Amino acid sequence: MEPLSATPRTSLGRTPERAGTDRSVLYEILDAGLICHLGVVVDGTPRVIPTCYGRLDDTLYVHGSTGASSLMTAPAQEICVTVTHLDGIVLARSLFHHSINFRSAMVYGVPSPVTGEDEKLAALRVVTEQLAPGQWDAARHPTRKELAGTTVLALPLAEASVKIRQGPPSDDDEDHALPTWAGVLPVHQTFGAPVPDPALTPGISVPAHIAAR
Amino acid sequence: MEPLSATPRTSLGRTPERAGTDRSVLYEILDAGLICHLGVVVDGTPRVIPTCYGRLDDTLYVHGSTGASSLMTAPAQEICVTVTHLDGIVLARSLFHHSINFRSAMVYGVPSPVTGEDEKLAALRVVTEQLAPGQWDAARHPTRKELAGTTVLALPLAEASVKIRQGPPSDDDEDHALPTWAGVLPVHQTFGAPVPDPALTPGISVPAHIAAR
Repeated sequence: MEPLSATPRTSLGRTPERAGTDRSVLYEILDAGLICHLGVVVDGTPRVIPTCYGRLDDTLYVHGSTGASSLMTAPAQEICVTVTHLDGIVLARSLFHHSINFRSAMVYGVPSPVTGEDEKLAALRVVTEQLAPGQWDAARHPTRKELAGTTVLALPLAEASVKIRQGPPSDDDEDHALPTWAGVLPVHQTFGAPVPDPALTPGISVPAHIAAR
Repeated sequence: MEPLSATPRTSLGRTPERAGTDRSVLYEILDAGLICHLGVVVDGTPRVIPTCYGRLDDTLYVHGSTGASSLMTAPAQEICVTVTHLDGIVLARSLFHHSINFRSAMVYGVPSPVTGEDEKLAALRVVTEQLAPGQWDAARHPTRKELAGTTVLALPLAEASVKIRQGPPSDDDEDHALPTWAGVLPVHQTFGAPVPDPALTPGISVPAHIAAR
């Protein structure tokens, strides 16, 4: 497996010990996410858009959105896709060492619009299964018209960085004697009980692939 | 209360029904978040960085980070700060209408570095209390040296947009007869039980303001 790239912008200046260099860690962070934040430059200024995505091998597929439409008219521009998992709030004895435990991945590159019906279907399958595993086989597939109205961008995982902070607070030695509680408040993303569409035909029960999450 | 701005980039083109125009909704979305995604342009390309923030009245304070350091050397550039809450996965009868329920806020503007010890302390208090309410009074305050080593940016809530999707899937009428389950899988952010620092002095119990979350 190729290690991660080490271009200047994917090398961490301030806290190099938080950098991941293993490609498998990049995959884990991306595969565990439900949404990404897509950064684009519009008229010279940054725009950050939450949207859906999926990964297959070394390609990240990003679902079309309001922001992606501006990308489609100028497809040859660079984007940044960031996926962040907030794992905990780090409560230190000093305010200065308060922090967050997190895992984040940033991917840079020039995306290509996915064209061709078969290619688009394959890419949409990746995006759908990332958000809602099992739904590709459960729901009605896109019509030609729906496919034409859907934008998917493909971004190679060629230039990427991973940043991770885990573990207890990093208080200064002289602060350890303070009578202040210190530790981590874990943060989790959880699923609630499925809420049926009020228009659902009576008698259709929640399928196992949804109930099991 | 001033309504939200309606500049071209804060007006939603594709799904105007998802736009919020009430400033109180902007406040609610920002106040409920733990981290934001900060977008900056570095050497002409976008960079999206997760970081901590806080709001006081119509100012958003963004905590210094690896990315913010590049902002400090070129402070007169525009940034975009996005806060997103993922509330649910929308499972439709058709793949085309799969979606997410979410609340997001995007704020644009040119940030100012917060300077002056009193101003910086006040801004840090806002950021700390957003992430860890109650900790400002519980933990050791910053030294002058720590203050000098901390970057906080102030961004006015002058140009902002809010986007919200809630509720059941929006399947086409002709798809309602399909024998496919449809509804929403709620997504929640929850806190786990506090994990004490292994180096914690024995006998210090978790304070109520942490345990109560």
